[in-house]
Amino acid sequence: MPFQISAELRYTVFEQSTLLLNLHALETSNQTITDESFTVTQSATCEFSPLETGENRYVRLDTSGVSDLLINYDVTVATNPSVREVHAISHITLAMIEHEVLPYLFASRYCQSDRLGRLASKHFGHITHPLAQASAVSGWIFENIDYVSGSTDTGTSAEDTVTQRAGVCRDFAHLGIAFCRALCIPARYFTGYACEMQPPDFHACFEVCVGNEWFVFDPTRLSAPNVLVRIATGRDAADSSVVSIFGAVQLEWMSVSCTADSFLPMTPEEMTGKAILLEP
Amino acid sequence: MPFQISAELRYTVFEQSTLLLNLHALETSNQTITDESFTVTQSATCEFSPLETGENRYVRLDTSGVSDLLINYDVTVATNPSVREVHAISHITLAMIEHEVLPYLFASRYCQSDRLGRLASKHFGHITHPLAQASAVSGWIFENIDYVSGSTDTGTSAEDTVTQRAGVCRDFAHLGIAFCRALCIPARYFTGYACEMQPPDFHACFEVCVGNEWFVFDPTRLSAPNVLVRIATGRDAADSSVVSIFGAVQLEWMSVSCTADSFLPMTPEEMTGKAILLEP
Amino acid sequence: MPFQISAELRYTVFEQSTLLLNLHALETSNQTITDESFTVTQSATCEFSPLETGENRYVRLDTSGVSDLLINYDVTVATNPSVREVHAISHITLAMIEHEVLPYLFASRYCQSDRLGRLASKHFGHITHPLAQASAVSGWIFENIDYVSGSTDTGTSAEDTVTQRAGVCRDFAHLGIAFCRALCIPARYFTGYACEMQPPDFHACFEVCVGNEWFVFDPTRLSAPNVLVRIATGRDAADSSVVSIFGAVQLEWMSVSCTADSFLPMTPEEMTGKAILLEP
Amino acid sequence: MPFQISAELRYTVFEQSTLLLNLHALETSNQTITDESFTVTQSATCEFSPLETGENRYVRLDTSGVSDLLINYDVTVATNPSVREVHAISHITLAMIEHEVLPYLFASRYCQSDRLGRLASKHFGHITHPLAQASAVSGWIFENIDYVSGSTDTGTSAEDTVTQRAGVCRDFAHLGIAFCRALCIPARYFTGYACEMQPPDFHACFEVCVGNEWFVFDPTRLSAPNVLVRIATGRDAADSSVVSIFGAVQLEWMSVSCTADSFLPMTPEEMTGKAILLEP
Repeated sequence: MPFQISAELRYTVFEQSTLLLNLHALETSNQTITDESFTVTQSATCEFSPLETGENRYVRLDTSGVSDLLINYDVTVATNPSVREVHAISHITLAMIEHEVLPYLFASRYCQSDRLGRLASKHFGHITHPLAQASAVSGWIFENIDYVSGSTDTGTSAEDTVTQRAGVCRDFAHLGIAFCRALCIPARYFTGYACEMQPPDFHACFEVCVGNEWFVFDPTRLSAPNVLVRIATGRDAADSSVVSIFGAVQLEWMSVSCTADSFLPMTPEEMTGKAILLEP
Repeated sequence: MPFQISAELRYTVFEQSTLLLNLHALETSNQTITDESFTVTQSATCEFSPLETGENRYVRLDTSGVSDLLINYDVTVATNPSVREVHAISHITLAMIEHEVLPYLFASRYCQSDRLGRLASKHFGHITHPLAQASAVSGWIFENIDYVSGSTDTGTSAEDTVTQRAGVCRDFAHLGIAFCRALCIPARYFTGYACEMQPPDFHACFEVCVGNEWFVFDPTRLSAPNVLVRIATGRDAADSSVVSIFGAVQLEWMSVSCTADSFLPMTPEEMTGKAILLEP
Repeated sequence: MPFQISAELRYTVFEQSTLLLNLHALETSNQTITDESFTVTQSATCEFSPLETGENRYVRLDTSGVSDLLINYDVTVATNPSVREVHAISHITLAMIEHEVLPYLFASRYCQSDRLGRLASKHFGHITHPLAQASAVSGWIFENIDYVSGSTDTGTSAEDTVTQRAGVCRDFAHLGIAFCRALCIPARYFTGYACEMQPPDFHACFEVCVGNEWFVFDPTRLSAPNVLVRIATGRDAADSSVVSIFGAVQLEWMSVSCTADSFLPMTPEEMTGKAILLEP
Repeated sequence: MPFQISAELRYTVFEQSTLLLNLHALETSNQTITDESFTVTQSATCEFSPLETGENRYVRLDTSGVSDLLINYDVTVATNPSVREVHAISHITLAMIEHEVLPYLFASRYCQSDRLGRLASKHFGHITHPLAQASAVSGWIFENIDYVSGSTDTGTSAEDTVTQRAGVCRDFAHLGIAFCRALCIPARYFTGYACEMQPPDFHACFEVCVGNEWFVFDPTRLSAPNVLVRIATGRDAADSSVVSIFGAVQLEWMSVSCTADSFLPMTPEEMTGKAILLEP
């Protein structure tokens, strides 16, 4: 089921600024891209990051001489997620994880895993398999945090969400990452498109690394892991937000859509005892 | 069962400073004081606050010309706590509580009740009687927060304790107060002596006001409500700590004891369905 | 110059709630009230706090059975502030301040004076007279914090404002209080009306106690101390906000005006070397 | 002037744990390593990270079956820092910095640059050259933050240091990084050895990227940039601390020394108008 994706962003530019855009679907061995088009108000200067970069496809945009900035992105993406039996995934020790995975064990701006050790251990310490822990983390967040649009802002972190118990997909993902890292499970932020999500928007989830493979979890349950399209991954929203603005630029309007002709999201029942990899 | 109380504090004074001491047992209709003695290194100047003040018996101490400050306090105190049946305590609305109780509804330095509303409501919102709520709050803290000496400092607040899940009696009391205020139950900080507590130290609990009476709870369960001697109450430790120092003074050594010839702390079983008032 | 004050607040009530209103001008020896009228949507139940209370005139409002709540308050107030020469105000030690002033030395919800000691000492520690310190604090805030409507919310505290350098009158007052308490100067929150302030709104300032008298400072410089009308004082906005809501009530619309036929705000030049007392 | 470096760490191990050690001097084109020896209590299992990794030389250590863990590291290191004239360093725009430098623009665990924009702009926004800004940041920290051993802990972040005005080298570096990122200058954490530093310890500084070269600053002024030996760099101490512990292990004793036969630290006068690169 290929996904038709469309994103449009309109900004007012107040002074010469640089934007770092992170809205291109990533090309991976499991994610195939066709019919891609990206247009920006003519006079803005774009620089595309080299494609070999695995984690994102940054576009840098220099706004000098632009007052109204319009960005359009359209693409068709086919994905091929894999489903595994949790019990069949080998449980390796920290000492055996790959070197490049190590940074995802450390605390980051919005994921203060260093402060959540005792809480994570109380809630999830009795579970032995790390994927079962991550699944329990995701379920706990869904049960205990209210999804409330507008309840948080760009300064909100996992620690705030533990206390305040409300947030949006970004906050849910941050808390999932923080808990998993506190349990010594490498975890990263996933930003992408989600098919037919209501309301339509960019989406955020989290991925954990077990046995040197990355499994995805959506603690909001607003989407299903098999209908996600990856844009980027990072330590948290600080390094993988859709748009990072350096200067004075204001978002005026945004529209995102992700649809498919046939669309079969996995149900919670289908996911019981399973874990989903977006990449092989 | 009268309690024999003894406290000794030794400080080094580095410059002319003012100490606000809060270690005298309060005289109330239910708390009778005999054989009280209070001595301070001779050259320090003491000013005792007027006795009619209901909430504490501050001693102000001017250290000019003193380098080693030694404070000794001894007293015998008889108390007469009352035990009530929770179901017999009338449940009045916020609109009917006494005017002077209102300040205990508001957030304070260490009790950010304004940030814990959703969490308090999730955990305790289904309970109808405010005393049953306060009792559930106290039990939840006992079950979910680890008592770990040295795990916190004077900057630690209820919000930190929700996240970090460890603390000492002061932190347990702050969290109890914050949850209760978030539930619209007036709550205050209690500081006092606790008979035979191990290790011996000053103790902190919290009191809630229901039906215009104040009931005491000890979420640490290190003591029992019927073997407490009140020193002071306040919004939180910011205004009822045992010693507030304005200047450069360092604690070198401290010793506290509270004993009784006969000593019958209430057991958790005896307290089931009951609530304890220290004052009538 | 008597001030004509008018305030109107309109709320939607979603469930039975209690509001604590704090918008009546206080009657003091220096503040005379005439032609006062206060009306509330008919079916709401009001309870007025006893007038002898010095610090505020709370109105408790029970909204049961009300869906749209309209509150109107009109009053004429004459004030009589005093102007003193700073150098003539006696500088007493902490050990001599009145007992009831002590609570204003302690840290509170929005004024974490316990965390700002080193910063306060660096900026203001070299100034000897406490009123000159308070004046320097007020000036520093005016120079270093940007007044930006909407930049903060009800969770913002003095500590945040030190870092983020923007806020509104409430935040400016909180920072002034926190700095002064860190310097061992008792300080409290003032909420009131300010003549011809632009934009019209309730106003917040801070008062410091020197020589057992309270002097007022407005670090926003949006008003002048001699054209203020006091509503209430407290430790900070947690206990003196205009409206405290216990329940589910939403502000829909608000209007405040404070005018005078003749209106002569003191200029910064006139205030040089002076300090203003609202009460004698 | 080659540096003789020696580090010894002794731990008690309470359960099977993994340590990530980050104490090997990095081999770079400007940093030459000879006579290196690294020994660990025999039964611990070590895995050395591949040497091609540019930013650190992690050693992973599995403690199973070990109760006392002793780590010894000795090395001789020759460095070759370059000194540049600030005015000769080209000032490139954000749009031209290299792709791999981008992550150092983003906020991280201990460097909340997203919250310090207004403060950074007020203090340093008037300075035009980014290296002059970074130098002013380093000088401001030296002037305004007190170096106080034991004043902070592993939870302390740049935001705390702005408020509390005290810290150690780690805190100074974090604040430098946070300010620079808030000014859109990429900045990273440097951890290493510093010749003859008093008291001897591991050291932390910060580096900023201007014109795609990294310049080093030591806001503590406890060392000089030309007598530093690099261990690692990272976003902040979260990913470049000397030892990261996953498990239950307690440091019992630590000793660090870094000496040289001839030792000529640059003076502040020699550094005026200059900037130092550790790598070419």
